[in-house]
Amino acid sequence: MGSQVYRFKGQNLLKARDLIIRVTYRFPAGTDLAKLARMVAVGQSAGTWSPKYEDRKDRLSGHMAEIIDLVPHESGGGLAVIDYPVSNCPDSTGSLLTAIMGKYSMAIPMKVIDLVLPEGYGVPPAFGIDGIRRSLGVFDRPLLMAIFKPSLGLTASEHGEIFREAAFSGIDLMKDDEILPDIPECSALDRLTTVRTVVDEIWRTQKRRVLYAVNLSGRADEILRKARVLVSEGANALLLNVLSYGYPVLEALAADPLVNVPIFCHPALSGVFTGPSDHGFSSRVVLGTLMAHAGGDAVLFPTRFGNFPVSPEEESDLVDTLHRSSVFPVPSGGVTPLSVLPLCQTYGKEIIINAGTAIMDHPEGVSAGVGAFVTALSDAGWKQESALPFQKRGD
Amino acid sequence: MGSQVYRFKGQNLLKARDLIIRVTYRFPAGTDLAKLARMVAVGQSAGTWSPKYEDRKDRLSGHMAEIIDLVPHESGGGLAVIDYPVSNCPDSTGSLLTAIMGKYSMAIPMKVIDLVLPEGYGVPPAFGIDGIRRSLGVFDRPLLMAIFKPSLGLTASEHGEIFREAAFSGIDLMKDDEILPDIPECSALDRLTTVRTVVDEIWRTQKRRVLYAVNLSGRADEILRKARVLVSEGANALLLNVLSYGYPVLEALAADPLVNVPIFCHPALSGVFTGPSDHGFSSRVVLGTLMAHAGGDAVLFPTRFGNFPVSPEEESDLVDTLHRSSVFPVPSGGVTPLSVLPLCQTYGKEIIINAGTAIMDHPEGVSAGVGAFVTALSDAGWKQESALPFQKRGD
Repeated sequence: MGSQVYRFKGQNLLKARDLIIRVTYRFPAGTDLAKLARMVAVGQSAGTWSPKYEDRKDRLSGHMAEIIDLVPHESGGGLAVIDYPVSNCPDSTGSLLTAIMGKYSMAIPMKVIDLVLPEGYGVPPAFGIDGIRRSLGVFDRPLLMAIFKPSLGLTASEHGEIFREAAFSGIDLMKDDEILPDIPECSALDRLTTVRTVVDEIWRTQKRRVLYAVNLSGRADEILRKARVLVSEGANALLLNVLSYGYPVLEALAADPLVNVPIFCHPALSGVFTGPSDHGFSSRVVLGTLMAHAGGDAVLFPTRFGNFPVSPEEESDLVDTLHRSSVFPVPSGGVTPLSVLPLCQTYGKEIIINAGTAIMDHPEGVSAGVGAFVTALSDAGWKQESALPFQKRGD
Repeated sequence: MGSQVYRFKGQNLLKARDLIIRVTYRFPAGTDLAKLARMVAVGQSAGTWSPKYEDRKDRLSGHMAEIIDLVPHESGGGLAVIDYPVSNCPDSTGSLLTAIMGKYSMAIPMKVIDLVLPEGYGVPPAFGIDGIRRSLGVFDRPLLMAIFKPSLGLTASEHGEIFREAAFSGIDLMKDDEILPDIPECSALDRLTTVRTVVDEIWRTQKRRVLYAVNLSGRADEILRKARVLVSEGANALLLNVLSYGYPVLEALAADPLVNVPIFCHPALSGVFTGPSDHGFSSRVVLGTLMAHAGGDAVLFPTRFGNFPVSPEEESDLVDTLHRSSVFPVPSGGVTPLSVLPLCQTYGKEIIINAGTAIMDHPEGVSAGVGAFVTALSDAGWKQESALPFQKRGD
């Protein structure tokens, strides 16, 4: 009868009723905090607008959300902390988003500013900081990542040439630009094939591993299938635009034992969720907590040390959230060699410094661009390690 | 080498370079329209912040976006119409969202207020208005849909009992509440099993078909697998929280020949995309154009004729967009029998009128609740048809 499909996998086996999901909502000035909090707590668990369902509370007991705290603001609105039973949405961040925001997103101005999930909720990152470091054999400094540019218009063999130049100059990782999908004139598999040749050559000659995060695109079924094909053809990392494709796609990739490479999560579209508005989510929820519990190994985000307008607190909150989950923070967006020192001073060594045009558009070429970052890292006190001997690599 | 995975399916075979995606952005008051439009058009196709890539225009010629029109507002900002080549994102709405909004969502206040896609773009609805009507054998009146309540806390057999009462009273369709996931104490398969018994009984005794849209949840891979299992076990419709799970999950379901039932699209979370803010999208883009091109057969949306605060223009724009794509509009949210006449007068017969508590909480029970809607429909001039004879049903 196919019922085995409905059994939860070991990783999701939580004692559901003992566990809660804690959401902190912010309601804007001029709103009735207690009323809106109650509307959300009842409506998103009993699922009705009417107070009538209070009568059925016994039958709903395992599913009722509970208002834990209200912190009114003097101008109205304020913060509401609401606990949801995990049993309301045990199976994915898709049902979680429906549960904690869902239809009320269309009716009430509210922002999820914090989200605390049970430790085992969702799909854990299979690699995270430690796993990515083991893949590279680099443990004692921030990592360096570059982005292929221009995003669209390069051939697959040009990807290979650029990768060769960057990789032999000391880059640790390279990624596709997020807007490059799997297009016939420069397919993901063709890009991988040319890059993989260089990856193997560097390994043979230098015993150094360089990761290439190839961008996934297509329908959900195609992405899941392509990820397996790409990994079987030698991909050592993947890139996913998580907000464009949905957290449940990330979860599926992270849970797939055949997709045994780190998954880099791009924040494209996230501004729609986190923009300056009374609706939506904070960055640390969208790019931090949810990414970590959907199985992301590294998360890119716009940094104030580049050219994005991010508040220091917002960015630090996000980095702290990722670090707590052992997910690699990847500060990005207009990052230059001048960004390196403040990034290292602010966040320490557990970051991947990610640069696009500062490397690709360096007046003396890609190699000089990478060199400028290697020098900046050295000036900040971090030396490139020599590669580990072959027999010590890995776990 | 697995390269066959990278071949586009027939439905996506567009003459890419001949086709464009037209996006109308709104930039808020106080912004520099021409500058921001240029930043988006260049940055989202060449993929750089720098004007240097103008030099490479030849190589990028097939991928450059083009500013077609600028309509400045007297207070600054205004509208910009930008054309993107389909070849920038030929393979899914995931790459489309990355292309037209992507990283700029984090840097620039901008709202996509209109989106025109080539007719064959994406995955077409497999059923739409005509297909859903053929499934039901009802052609000449608005359809009636009810929602199981309470959302959480019912057993599977209670679903069956409620369905029996509603279905024998004349409802055309029923759906799970969107916040009910596939939970062990009331699994999707168990719900289907009890409901399906009633569906078959009504067919045997009345030659009338009633649809039950069972809610999908889980990781993307689980959803795709569950959908096939549910359909093979007799599901005649599915429900997906498209914004929580991602359009590419909808695309995968719609493209799957083994998932040969209509897909109902719930708008949970859509307020985050469409809220009153300078960021995001209009409703007609998120719930209209994108749903239609990702393969949705029917789309629920909050209606001003219920209890949601929606502007008449916004709602009409959305309904028009859905009708043009032959997707069934499903006005929802606090709909009562009093909503029926204005809904019919405003949108005509090609709608599915969807009620939750007005039916489930009717003081005289579910049957009376459905009856009140049947009466309202009759008062509005639409009679329940007698069922078609068996041999005429279907295509």
